[in-house]
Amino acid sequence: MAAAATIDLNSDLGEGFGAWGLGDDEAMLDVVTSANVACGFHAGDPRTLLATCAQAVARGVVIGAQVGYRDLAGFGRRFIDYEPADLVADVLYQIGALDGLARAAGGRVRYVKPHGALYNAIVHHEEQAAAVVEAVHRYDPALPVLGLPGSAFLRRAMAAGLPTRAEAFADRGYTPQGTLVPRGEAGALLHDPAEVAARMVRLVTAGELTAVDGTVLPVRADSLCVHGDSPGAVAMARAVAAALGAAGVRLAPFNPDTVRA
Amino acid sequence: MAAAATIDLNSDLGEGFGAWGLGDDEAMLDVVTSANVACGFHAGDPRTLLATCAQAVARGVVIGAQVGYRDLAGFGRRFIDYEPADLVADVLYQIGALDGLARAAGGRVRYVKPHGALYNAIVHHEEQAAAVVEAVHRYDPALPVLGLPGSAFLRRAMAAGLPTRAEAFADRGYTPQGTLVPRGEAGALLHDPAEVAARMVRLVTAGELTAVDGTVLPVRADSLCVHGDSPGAVAMARAVAAALGAAGVRLAPFNPDTVRA
Amino acid sequence: MAAAATIDLNSDLGEGFGAWGLGDDEAMLDVVTSANVACGFHAGDPRTLLATCAQAVARGVVIGAQVGYRDLAGFGRRFIDYEPADLVADVLYQIGALDGLARAAGGRVRYVKPHGALYNAIVHHEEQAAAVVEAVHRYDPALPVLGLPGSAFLRRAMAAGLPTRAEAFADRGYTPQGTLVPRGEAGALLHDPAEVAARMVRLVTAGELTAVDGTVLPVRADSLCVHGDSPGAVAMARAVAAALGAAGVRLAPFNPDTVRA
Amino acid sequence: MAAAATIDLNSDLGEGFGAWGLGDDEAMLDVVTSANVACGFHAGDPRTLLATCAQAVARGVVIGAQVGYRDLAGFGRRFIDYEPADLVADVLYQIGALDGLARAAGGRVRYVKPHGALYNAIVHHEEQAAAVVEAVHRYDPALPVLGLPGSAFLRRAMAAGLPTRAEAFADRGYTPQGTLVPRGEAGALLHDPAEVAARMVRLVTAGELTAVDGTVLPVRADSLCVHGDSPGAVAMARAVAAALGAAGVRLAPFNPDTVRA
Repeated sequence: MAAAATIDLNSDLGEGFGAWGLGDDEAMLDVVTSANVACGFHAGDPRTLLATCAQAVARGVVIGAQVGYRDLAGFGRRFIDYEPADLVADVLYQIGALDGLARAAGGRVRYVKPHGALYNAIVHHEEQAAAVVEAVHRYDPALPVLGLPGSAFLRRAMAAGLPTRAEAFADRGYTPQGTLVPRGEAGALLHDPAEVAARMVRLVTAGELTAVDGTVLPVRADSLCVHGDSPGAVAMARAVAAALGAAGVRLAPFNPDTVRA
Repeated sequence: MAAAATIDLNSDLGEGFGAWGLGDDEAMLDVVTSANVACGFHAGDPRTLLATCAQAVARGVVIGAQVGYRDLAGFGRRFIDYEPADLVADVLYQIGALDGLARAAGGRVRYVKPHGALYNAIVHHEEQAAAVVEAVHRYDPALPVLGLPGSAFLRRAMAAGLPTRAEAFADRGYTPQGTLVPRGEAGALLHDPAEVAARMVRLVTAGELTAVDGTVLPVRADSLCVHGDSPGAVAMARAVAAALGAAGVRLAPFNPDTVRA
Repeated sequence: MAAAATIDLNSDLGEGFGAWGLGDDEAMLDVVTSANVACGFHAGDPRTLLATCAQAVARGVVIGAQVGYRDLAGFGRRFIDYEPADLVADVLYQIGALDGLARAAGGRVRYVKPHGALYNAIVHHEEQAAAVVEAVHRYDPALPVLGLPGSAFLRRAMAAGLPTRAEAFADRGYTPQGTLVPRGEAGALLHDPAEVAARMVRLVTAGELTAVDGTVLPVRADSLCVHGDSPGAVAMARAVAAALGAAGVRLAPFNPDTVRA
Repeated sequence: MAAAATIDLNSDLGEGFGAWGLGDDEAMLDVVTSANVACGFHAGDPRTLLATCAQAVARGVVIGAQVGYRDLAGFGRRFIDYEPADLVADVLYQIGALDGLARAAGGRVRYVKPHGALYNAIVHHEEQAAAVVEAVHRYDPALPVLGLPGSAFLRRAMAAGLPTRAEAFADRGYTPQGTLVPRGEAGALLHDPAEVAARMVRLVTAGELTAVDGTVLPVRADSLCVHGDSPGAVAMARAVAAALGAAGVRLAPFNPDTVRA
């Protein structure tokens, strides 16, 4: 319980592109402790990314590289059947690009979290999971990856010696097997901030969650993901943060920027 | 003369994109000492760039970031009227991206050379020159820039404290003022390998070059640029390298990779 | 005066891209009579464009092709120094693409209006103006172009035999010379819907406008441009439409879709 | 047999992009009767496409729209899990764009043939096959589609009332079931021009082909596909054309441009 009294809160940020904005990044940066910053392939023009990194650094929010498929038109939400060698190189390119911007802003990339369809694919897709792991490992074997507990991605990352961190999703329903209820099915998305906040407090303090069918699931998480791009996202994130605070849980990044600490 | 007995040979490489190749990179890497590797904005998909970096490292060729405008369709050869803040971020993004790939290949980005229309623009365009200088300086104030002697770019880089290196173009004609004869005008491009080689030997050993009108120009250069994408490019580069060797000039990168030396 | 009692109202629409929206297209389509629909090069993914065309057709709003530079990251707002042959082909490609979507939606492209930096460039840039004119003419010599009175674009279009239509900008200030006050200067943008509406009624019914220095300018326009992407855009457009209606001016497209009329 | 004495020869063309060329389009256009011209999403900048259309028109070669996934970096060779509504719009956009260029060049798009991973996907992927069929049908219900016999694509196109044409691949091996031997397996690619030419003569005159295991297969085709982007592609195409001519088979497009005939 003592160990569980600290948790990270992460959210996807920097997901505009040129003239197009997405979400209220500054407001979310006031709440979260880790920012999954886009890297330009599914979203994020360099100027937006540099600004987002600077805003994160100014608040002590830790920067992670949210790597994705090269697919601006699809926002990285469509599976693409990459050759592994292409995926290794695309992921390396994205981490390096964001790290360059993060350094120029006084920070650094402190973890990697895949985005969208890539995130979903490497829960099961062994070749793509291996490619992402290879890319992170070649960039920096001490760089943690953040992902879904039980995924091929985290399993392979652990086998490769990368630090791994598990996340839970604040506003998503879970199956009795501990996986997410697919979008489009009943119970996939939770909309009530008070309910979501209560679930997260229970998850962090008691290590359990109620699945859609009422089953009580054991769930362990190093970080809680709150979504940044839906209406009400900021209010939801604030409710979760406030409830955790009221329950005596301290919000802190899972991989603090030791250079700056 | 003693100091002049060493010179760098640079060429643009990694300029394919996906299914499309450009030039014979491996053959050029056997000749040059510095590789201006594309960064993905005017050319260069990550897999090609990673392979080019690995080939450069294997031969002890030093890697430079060849940053350009975001314009794949125009190959970075069209002036784009960027806002300075966009250019700063785009250049930072590109340097970081290539550096990530270079590190994964066992090397590092050791200098920055702008490409195409950006290169030409910042000979005179003060705002864009300042933006490129700011980006390089924010990435690493010890990173040298390679450019045209007398350009706004090198002048501003020097003022900002960046190491600067001047280059001469092996296969281009010069005006009596020491600038390049614009493409499309008579004498802009030199095609005879023997003539080009003799000019470069004279430039390195005597510090002079004959302009299109016969004027003898004093020219100082830290590096000679040989083009990689024209038919006969490799033969031209080999002729220049052979003639320099025969004249007792040693080919060596202007910024050797000291980690590996 | 009788002829002036009808005017077209145009606005830029379909300017989202994938996950990113821009403006409230449906609300604007309830007000305007002509829709400058993006063509995918500065904005507009095909699915959005098809939906926008269908919404326009459903309301009897006429579809125009808003062609621009190939520059999603810059939203077509940066000048690009195109070779004319590239610009001819890029404009042809965009018109054809949008026309395909418009036809599938039961409409057709009924005019062409350049976007952003291209619009501004061809006020004076003769080669680019000629290229756009050539593209429209090769697509369909009966297709009208909409542009700035006095521009190289409209002059060359007229010389080439294309139908030309002149537009005035509802929310922009004018210099005594009849050009727009550049963005960033005092008086460039007008924010008061009542003032803008009154100016437009005066322009349509009396053919005059007051410049920033108080000079009364004669201005003739076939169409009034109301912007769609600023906060308050819909309210501004509604105010202009209401004031024109109250003054007895009928809103109607300058190039009605005769197939459907 | 009399009816079989005429056959179409098709090849993929216009597949360069900006500075990058691919294949020898002019040489292939001297051999084939139908050109599958890229549409800009997997390859083909507008200037290249316009030039290719003009070259095709000059030789009486019929233009088809080679539509693909939006994936320049992957050359359209990677499966992308599109939502059907996105695919409908993307295909419509591409057909319209190429048709605009073709019309400006004096021709028209006379058929549609999907490219690469999209071609392969819609052999079995019912939703994507339906989306491509819907797009073609909405563009022009009289526009033929060219595809693999027995594919979901041709079956659905036929059910929708689109004219369908079947093709055989000159340089590919066939399984006993009449499908192509997957790339990477033994016998997938045939390299001997004489053997390929003899196979195609037999296919056209006798309606049969020998599969990799020696089985004699009945095969019917309206068009033979010869590849344009491999070394030796032109020589292979010329060998096929010459052998067919020697066997008394007339080469002619399956959908001649009746406007120009």
